Amino acid sequence: MSFTTDTSFVREGDMYHSEIRPGWDIMGNANGGYLMAMAARAMADASRPHPISVSAHFLSPGKPGPVSISPTIVKQGRNFSTVRASMVGPEKPIIELLGSFGELASADNVVLVDAEPPDLPAPHECVARERHSSGAAPPFIDKLDIRLHPEDALFYENRPSGRPLMRGWIKMVDDEPIDAFGLLLVADVFPPTIFNADLPRAWVPTLEMTSHVRGLPEPGWLRCQFSTRFVTGGFLEEDGVVWDASGKLVVQSRQLALMPRT
Amino acid sequence: MSFTTDTSFVREGDMYHSEIRPGWDIMGNANGGYLMAMAARAMADASRPHPISVSAHFLSPGKPGPVSISPTIVKQGRNFSTVRASMVGPEKPIIELLGSFGELASADNVVLVDAEPPDLPAPHECVARERHSSGAAPPFIDKLDIRLHPEDALFYENRPSGRPLMRGWIKMVDDEPIDAFGLLLVADVFPPTIFNADLPRAWVPTLEMTSHVRGLPEPGWLRCQFSTRFVTGGFLEEDGVVWDASGKLVVQSRQLALMPRT
Repeated sequence: MSFTTDTSFVREGDMYHSEIRPGWDIMGNANGGYLMAMAARAMADASRPHPISVSAHFLSPGKPGPVSISPTIVKQGRNFSTVRASMVGPEKPIIELLGSFGELASADNVVLVDAEPPDLPAPHECVARERHSSGAAPPFIDKLDIRLHPEDALFYENRPSGRPLMRGWIKMVDDEPIDAFGLLLVADVFPPTIFNADLPRAWVPTLEMTSHVRGLPEPGWLRCQFSTRFVTGGFLEEDGVVWDASGKLVVQSRQLALMPRT
Repeated sequence: MSFTTDTSFVREGDMYHSEIRPGWDIMGNANGGYLMAMAARAMADASRPHPISVSAHFLSPGKPGPVSISPTIVKQGRNFSTVRASMVGPEKPIIELLGSFGELASADNVVLVDAEPPDLPAPHECVARERHSSGAAPPFIDKLDIRLHPEDALFYENRPSGRPLMRGWIKMVDDEPIDAFGLLLVADVFPPTIFNADLPRAWVPTLEMTSHVRGLPEPGWLRCQFSTRFVTGGFLEEDGVVWDASGKLVVQSRQLALMPRT
């Protein structure tokens, strides 16, 4: 039941068959980062080992059940392969992707960093989501151990901080190491930043998400920060930065989501 | 010789023929934002009027001359169309794109903004690029009027500020209004942020760029800020935010570029 198993595929010629497994959904719809990880695994198998930059446009909700992924190599370069792919369910297309794949250098090669990982209390001093569910269980609760910064967890008690910010730790519940594909998942599993804004709490579907995998993480807790600066014109962005246990950047993400018109 | 003319196309069935015009290049290679604008214009013609989110992966340099663009509708939804496209030159593919198109709401619908436009001296107090060229003319000099914040223009005198930041104003030289496609251009025409870092000044080719058009600009100068937080593992990101004359967000961009390994 590991993440790796849950994103595995069977290859048949140029076509990859997989399955959206249960437990990765929010109210029946599979998490976008989980779908991106699954598709990227097939795209990497067809090209080069690591996702470097992957963009996905979300077409229809992914429901548990079979999907097929058809990676097409756009260009096989000297250092990178550009690949597009569609993930299709029994009835409709689910996501469309475009990505560059390559071999990730060690995250050690740090030339310049003008950002700090978020200052977080230790994981055991943060707020584990299971303790604060009011009613339905929080999503992925048996898969991912997410510990929110206490200041950013107040929305559970209907006292949002007023700042569209979510900071916290994450690891797999079973301590499975997080690989480059796992990072695509991690970038999309925290509660939406706007749960902490002084706005009506609403379902904000993702139109597009791009993640840049910047390094392979050291084992251990990942430190995450998600923030939103603009809720305008019917859209909002959510920017993610994830650092590994050694304090190095491992993924940077941005998604564009739809805000119900007010 | 306007931007609109220089990104125009001739449609022939499902295929769009255009031409990379001279004057949009840096040392012979067409600017990435210009190529994205040209491709997006064809993708919009095939689907819906405005680019909302467009990602491009750069495959080979665009040289002045004919190109063809073949947009494929991935999904025609109720509010958005998802479109992929390849721009191909006489010899090789140039860029591969994936985008969502729709109808942009007025930028007036502001729900929450947690960011300030950069504080800039008036355009006439900023540094126009023509005055500081040392040798070759700066790129796009007869197309775009770019005025850099004096603090961010010191790199022209080989005194970089030490901060990977570029702030300034932009408009078309001929005062042509900047439309949604022009915003894709604007997001990619400032000098690279790392010209202001204490690093050897190097050519940093773009692997991927995603722009989210968040509103249609009012006429007048646009206010821009480009910044980099991480130069690690052989890559750097460059994040752009562009505000219109009325102080509203109009485009948010991020590109992933390759840093020569050190």
